[in-house]
Amino acid sequence: MVHYKLTYFDGRGFAEASRQVFKLAGIEFEDVRLPIASPEWEALKPSTPFGQLPVLSVDGFEIPQSAAILRYLARKFGFAGKTPEEEAWVDAIVDQFKDFMGQYRQYIYAVFLKKPVEEVEKAKTEVAIPARDAYFKILNGILEKSKSGFLVGDSVTFADLVVADNLVTLEKNGFVSNEEHLKIVEFKAKIQNLPKLKEWIETRPDTPF
Amino acid sequence: MVHYKLTYFDGRGFAEASRQVFKLAGIEFEDVRLPIASPEWEALKPSTPFGQLPVLSVDGFEIPQSAAILRYLARKFGFAGKTPEEEAWVDAIVDQFKDFMGQYRQYIYAVFLKKPVEEVEKAKTEVAIPARDAYFKILNGILEKSKSGFLVGDSVTFADLVVADNLVTLEKNGFVSNEEHLKIVEFKAKIQNLPKLKEWIETRPDTPF
Repeated sequence: MVHYKLTYFDGRGFAEASRQVFKLAGIEFEDVRLPIASPEWEALKPSTPFGQLPVLSVDGFEIPQSAAILRYLARKFGFAGKTPEEEAWVDAIVDQFKDFMGQYRQYIYAVFLKKPVEEVEKAKTEVAIPARDAYFKILNGILEKSKSGFLVGDSVTFADLVVADNLVTLEKNGFVSNEEHLKIVEFKAKIQNLPKLKEWIETRPDTPF
Repeated sequence: MVHYKLTYFDGRGFAEASRQVFKLAGIEFEDVRLPIASPEWEALKPSTPFGQLPVLSVDGFEIPQSAAILRYLARKFGFAGKTPEEEAWVDAIVDQFKDFMGQYRQYIYAVFLKKPVEEVEKAKTEVAIPARDAYFKILNGILEKSKSGFLVGDSVTFADLVVADNLVTLEKNGFVSNEEHLKIVEFKAKIQNLPKLKEWIETRPDTPF
């Protein structure tokens, strides 16, 4: 049996969708979680491929970068789209998500680094909220055209997992409104109520991000 | 025959590696280039999938996001890696490149938006140069272990194309030193001297980015 080990920090962040692929596929994996800024991580860092987490180890063969890991697992277990065109759209949505996160993160860092109130507020109103609005507009447009309720094709893909899990974080941070973003709230519920995911979500560690 | 149309701005940027995949594969494509901030682009924008370029049209079916387009073409024409593990590493390197660009771009925008000299200098020394150093360290590490001189496996992949083409831009902006970054300079030459690429590079429009 292949031994999968997924090493990340103790959060959902950029590893959770990969964990969810394992859960949906019913595949065992070692779920290694390191505290951020910990001596364990500092000790491990130089031996990781890119000096970053997550890293997936497949019988000792290491793969870095969250989307690369996720795509690798999703293609192996059937959650990457059913045609080359579906696969391209799954990839495109995940890249769009990452572009959004690149902007949204400016606000998160401002909070995390305890920047002055005005600076945090500026990052929120001038960067994070416009970025969210543009991203949600794209998601809404896709969901409006979707017959299945999934982002791509007629079954769950890793794009659904990435987007839905991030919505948990956005909700925790007050960036999702049940009234204004109804389609998106319904989408999140649909994905996270898939029986195998629901079971995992109820038992996984509860982390702020 | 499938009709491919690749629409982007009049630059190499996030579309050039896809153009190069077409050239390496010997596949005809329509190379549509719009001036940045042009009325043509403003008119087209609302009808693009994500309000952004590049967009690839495959017999009218549209795919957004540069890496998704590139991966789609590269897998179709055999430049995406030969095993799932090689494919994952190609993806990981391209994602690492995109992370680097997210930081490097802060400097480029500061220049482009004609920010005060001190601000440009700060973006260069505090963001762009450290980001380049971290990125080059990763590339160097990969090239040192490579037996073929390619980033992944024993033949050219889209990771090579993305990295080598961006090195052209970094050179133009003074971010590559022939002495300090010898392995990387040699790598760029190796890729861009592949006969079909060399021919394209000699005849393509010369653009600053």
